[in-house]
Amino acid sequence: MQNKPKPFVHRAAYYETDKMGIVHHANYIRWFEDARMDYMRQYGVDYAEMEKHGILMPVTDISCEYKTPVRFNEEVQIDVKMLSFNGVRLRFSYSIYSLHDHHLVAFGESGHCFVHSDTMHPMSLQKNYPDWYEKACSILHAEEAIS
Amino acid sequence: MQNKPKPFVHRAAYYETDKMGIVHHANYIRWFEDARMDYMRQYGVDYAEMEKHGILMPVTDISCEYKTPVRFNEEVQIDVKMLSFNGVRLRFSYSIYSLHDHHLVAFGESGHCFVHSDTMHPMSLQKNYPDWYEKACSILHAEEAIS
Amino acid sequence: MQNKPKPFVHRAAYYETDKMGIVHHANYIRWFEDARMDYMRQYGVDYAEMEKHGILMPVTDISCEYKTPVRFNEEVQIDVKMLSFNGVRLRFSYSIYSLHDHHLVAFGESGHCFVHSDTMHPMSLQKNYPDWYEKACSILHAEEAIS
Amino acid sequence: MQNKPKPFVHRAAYYETDKMGIVHHANYIRWFEDARMDYMRQYGVDYAEMEKHGILMPVTDISCEYKTPVRFNEEVQIDVKMLSFNGVRLRFSYSIYSLHDHHLVAFGESGHCFVHSDTMHPMSLQKNYPDWYEKACSILHAEEAIS
Repeated sequence: MQNKPKPFVHRAAYYETDKMGIVHHANYIRWFEDARMDYMRQYGVDYAEMEKHGILMPVTDISCEYKTPVRFNEEVQIDVKMLSFNGVRLRFSYSIYSLHDHHLVAFGESGHCFVHSDTMHPMSLQKNYPDWYEKACSILHAEEAIS
Repeated sequence: MQNKPKPFVHRAAYYETDKMGIVHHANYIRWFEDARMDYMRQYGVDYAEMEKHGILMPVTDISCEYKTPVRFNEEVQIDVKMLSFNGVRLRFSYSIYSLHDHHLVAFGESGHCFVHSDTMHPMSLQKNYPDWYEKACSILHAEEAIS
Repeated sequence: MQNKPKPFVHRAAYYETDKMGIVHHANYIRWFEDARMDYMRQYGVDYAEMEKHGILMPVTDISCEYKTPVRFNEEVQIDVKMLSFNGVRLRFSYSIYSLHDHHLVAFGESGHCFVHSDTMHPMSLQKNYPDWYEKACSILHAEEAIS
Repeated sequence: MQNKPKPFVHRAAYYETDKMGIVHHANYIRWFEDARMDYMRQYGVDYAEMEKHGILMPVTDISCEYKTPVRFNEEVQIDVKMLSFNGVRLRFSYSIYSLHDHHLVAFGESGHCFVHSDTMHPMSLQKNYPDWYEKACSILHAEEAIS
């Protein structure tokens, strides 16, 4: 039985802060990506491998709510969850917690589709890459088994 | 009578692209900021000046829908619009168009509040900085007069 | 006769600052690239076009000396100069001046080689792409004519 | 006796790549910072703590030679070494190795001075902050003991 994936941990870098003295909001979008890649890797889905097979997974939408600031050197953990997957579209959520006092720092979501790397045209993963489709389904099932 | 502000124009940089060959989605969040600063400046609201007076305007939420990719060297224009302002909270929308063929590349929104730069506590701009409150109101009125 | 190219002008963005209250040093390396692309474009060498022809021009070394800090909203101009070009290797220098008081903010250099985009192997531009070689030579000659 | 500090390990992110398919060169400058902060922390010098005491350590110069490209998802280790420290100026070197095949990916250096956080004026760490001066000296001594 699948264990819950280990959350991604990041220490806020100096270059991620801005003159307000806190991490600039655009960096969270990059943290989402770091955490998503790590989450998929833990479930056996290596995005670099996917790309080699000709599958790209561009972002179709992103959102983030900023609750409290993150300071330089502060460690945060990012919990990722696959929200939905239908073979054509995929959604993730991201909850960022401070490791300092475990409060919720930010919450966000991202939407994705699948495109052929040569044509950049959208496609059904289920139809074109049934093996990768099964892998993605297994993440969704694992998530459902956990919750 | 206030003229419509000139849209912010940006040429996609090489370092903004990723291995997919297109601009990485996190950069759009920075473009929103560039365009917002420029928009406010055209309306006579200089954010650097605001900060010197002790007012910070952090982002409380951000969202972006990505319609079509932007390529290296492609020029885009970003139309900003103040959606709402009540003295405590402020919202902007951003429409990014390609200057290549004028289609909509992306659409997004950002929410902001006001905090004291020394305490980082939220505050009412109307109550604490009536002059800056009036300036922000005048942008909203100008927007209403245009549309 | 070739006129001196117009220097690249940039306004320091909020997201480029760090908690020290000044522009983070890593951003200057990106400014070099912005300015270099613009400089080449003014001399009729479009890097996007070069890439379409199968030529990449990766950076082999970079250096920067930081003289005085750049603040948020401050405008800087970046003067680029092609230092040398032998068909295989290319060097540029970058002088960044504040438009506030025209002092030298930073000075840097970059080295480049040419590689085939399909193999990523180094090559002689002179041998493989004589037309592009001539274009690059003309920049060097123009620089010599100016100075 | 001080053990050699553990090298900093980083996995190349997707957003760090550019359309050439490799990590963009400007990101290495940020990796230097990540590795330097980690290295100092392992020697008991917490930069966030230093800043709280009113000491800033801005970069005065940076250089990097790029030997071989780094790909998305590739893990690199960054070995930092304090090269010199005289109470007023500080130098570090950085050797980046691929964990894939342990070849040298890049090599760089950074120079730093010390400034008062309130005035931004340069200062002698030895004279103004003897405790922090001793800490920095101990890193240099440990480096000499190792090599």
